[in-house]
Amino acid sequence: MGDLTMEAHEGVDEENGLVEIQYFTFGSEAEPFVLENQQSLPSVTTAYEVYGSLNAERDNVILVEHGLTGSSHAAGRYSWENRRAGYCNALIGPGRVFDTDKYCVVAPNALAGCRGATGPASIDPAAGKPYGLTFPIVTIRDMVRVQKRLIDHLGIRRLQLVVGGSMGGMQAFEWAVTYPEMVRAICPIASCSRTGAQSIAFNECMRRAIVLDPDWRKGEYYGGAVPASGLALARMIGTITYLSDPIMEQMFGRKPVDETTSLEHSLHARFDVERYLHEEGEKLVKRFDPNSYLYVTRAIDLHDISRGYGSLDAAYRRIQARVLLIGIRSDILFDPKQIRLMDEHLRRAGVQSAYTEIDSDYGHDAFLVEQEKMAAPLQALLATLQEAV
Amino acid sequence: MGDLTMEAHEGVDEENGLVEIQYFTFGSEAEPFVLENQQSLPSVTTAYEVYGSLNAERDNVILVEHGLTGSSHAAGRYSWENRRAGYCNALIGPGRVFDTDKYCVVAPNALAGCRGATGPASIDPAAGKPYGLTFPIVTIRDMVRVQKRLIDHLGIRRLQLVVGGSMGGMQAFEWAVTYPEMVRAICPIASCSRTGAQSIAFNECMRRAIVLDPDWRKGEYYGGAVPASGLALARMIGTITYLSDPIMEQMFGRKPVDETTSLEHSLHARFDVERYLHEEGEKLVKRFDPNSYLYVTRAIDLHDISRGYGSLDAAYRRIQARVLLIGIRSDILFDPKQIRLMDEHLRRAGVQSAYTEIDSDYGHDAFLVEQEKMAAPLQALLATLQEAV
Repeated sequence: MGDLTMEAHEGVDEENGLVEIQYFTFGSEAEPFVLENQQSLPSVTTAYEVYGSLNAERDNVILVEHGLTGSSHAAGRYSWENRRAGYCNALIGPGRVFDTDKYCVVAPNALAGCRGATGPASIDPAAGKPYGLTFPIVTIRDMVRVQKRLIDHLGIRRLQLVVGGSMGGMQAFEWAVTYPEMVRAICPIASCSRTGAQSIAFNECMRRAIVLDPDWRKGEYYGGAVPASGLALARMIGTITYLSDPIMEQMFGRKPVDETTSLEHSLHARFDVERYLHEEGEKLVKRFDPNSYLYVTRAIDLHDISRGYGSLDAAYRRIQARVLLIGIRSDILFDPKQIRLMDEHLRRAGVQSAYTEIDSDYGHDAFLVEQEKMAAPLQALLATLQEAV
Repeated sequence: MGDLTMEAHEGVDEENGLVEIQYFTFGSEAEPFVLENQQSLPSVTTAYEVYGSLNAERDNVILVEHGLTGSSHAAGRYSWENRRAGYCNALIGPGRVFDTDKYCVVAPNALAGCRGATGPASIDPAAGKPYGLTFPIVTIRDMVRVQKRLIDHLGIRRLQLVVGGSMGGMQAFEWAVTYPEMVRAICPIASCSRTGAQSIAFNECMRRAIVLDPDWRKGEYYGGAVPASGLALARMIGTITYLSDPIMEQMFGRKPVDETTSLEHSLHARFDVERYLHEEGEKLVKRFDPNSYLYVTRAIDLHDISRGYGSLDAAYRRIQARVLLIGIRSDILFDPKQIRLMDEHLRRAGVQSAYTEIDSDYGHDAFLVEQEKMAAPLQALLATLQEAV
């Protein structure tokens, strides 16, 4: 979810070369896309990127799902001037874990996002202006149902692996439960099969920050001033939860922004950790729509793969895919202890599940900033799939 | 810091009877109170309450320090109609750990607070209107320096114990370092000797929530609309950090506010955990001044007992008091591992320090809601002091 990744991958090799965003649109007035809540969208667009080629059997696909504020840009660069590669670049490419000489990696943008997917900033054809708050509530399952349309459109028969961190992992779970026959393996990293109270609580605080901004104007700010301070505060709150106490102590401690500042003299004096939070907030403002933030966090709250199946157990029993759960030792959003319990629950339900814990002080953000640590378990998972063919 | 306590103690026995707030005011234009940052206040008032009586030696005193949004109301009730007793009522009273037949318990309100202490809502005599943001930045040490004036005024010669949770514990530390000869023992509960980056980060988010509220008007809202939504959001953020993932799961899980609500249909649909956060936010608005929240959280950020002594080690070496550190197993604000390390550091510096960990799922709030669990170690500490007389 954080921005650290992109920074971490500045200056990496250029194996993935230049990549392009592609777009897929479906639906019509006559045949709209009906959401889980029975509301509908007459037209849905999703952005996606593809790295590698589809094989003759059309089944060598790895689907990479992004987190809360991510985009379809998982690997490569858009231009040689662009110093930053996609968010998952360390794992994707020729000879890497998601070997593009062998696999076709597909990375979509999630519904309700603002990086090429239909969302609250999109024009509502009926009204001739952006949806804003008239955009329907969507769920993680709806995101996955849109991706299924994309996968069908691309002629893909089967997914070898659906992988993602945080909200990306929620989508991986929904894939395995909603389309069990389509998926050979999933790897939810620092994620969950249904969202807990603490996550909902943080999400609600972040939403309140946005709606508190006088520029939010009940979501009708398009064309005017954007509720930048509100979104920035939401991101500041999020940023704390993506890190951990030890890493914050290591990165910032009690360092002042400016050694010459007498910290006791002004309410606005700044510790370095405050500067960092403000910078993270301002960076997100440049690339994310505040209304999308409201909708995507609500989709996360509503995430519960058991919905419609009666119980979590019943939902787990639908899963045919192998499951590799990855937890991060210092994660305060997705406690590794809970992920370990989920693994036990999955196995009791007959799922071929395994759990791996990444030793990192980076907290939740480790799924982005220390993705190399996930290479070995992912490699092993893909090898198992090949043996099983 | 939370409100859970007061609820938890509804209907407790009435041993402490009716209590009264008292006030102590000092300073003048000619002899102002000079703060750590060299700014000054011409007049300082502190509210305080006293339970029990001072002995002939004037040294049987236990000083009880409150947390961020607390007040001087540590025990008893203000009227028989009032169902709620003070925040530390379970530990204070005849026959209790802080036995008022033996000890004289003094509970002050911290400087910059708004429950009877001079703070940003007080009238600036020079301007004839509330200080607002012209109120000087104060520190935890300043709070303690004001208390020292109160203690001198009351004719108290020595403090047997200074005890408090969270910000209260920071004050206990400052007492032991600033007035080492005055203090026989301190017990900082779920607290620290200097504030870490994560706490500063949460504090900054809470302050941003207040200043984002259009009603805040750079702190000049007195007499007009109060920035209630901003303060409420600050409290909502705080509330998450005062609890823990396990207790939130136990208290709320994914329970909806209203079983008949179709959660998928509205952005404003509410989970029970959201309702709780909003209620906590609204409750604080009724009893706390938003500007005080800004100043008191900044005082917490600036807390560092080493200031002026060169190093933490040098500050620790000043301490003559016995130190009992209490950590809470599930606390996400004050990691018990860090408190244990602090104990080791104190002992290396020659301090008679000990560490006790409370097994509780309540997180940081346990220092209020499960104060009974602290009775035994506090009793043992007081017994040691008596033996040592």
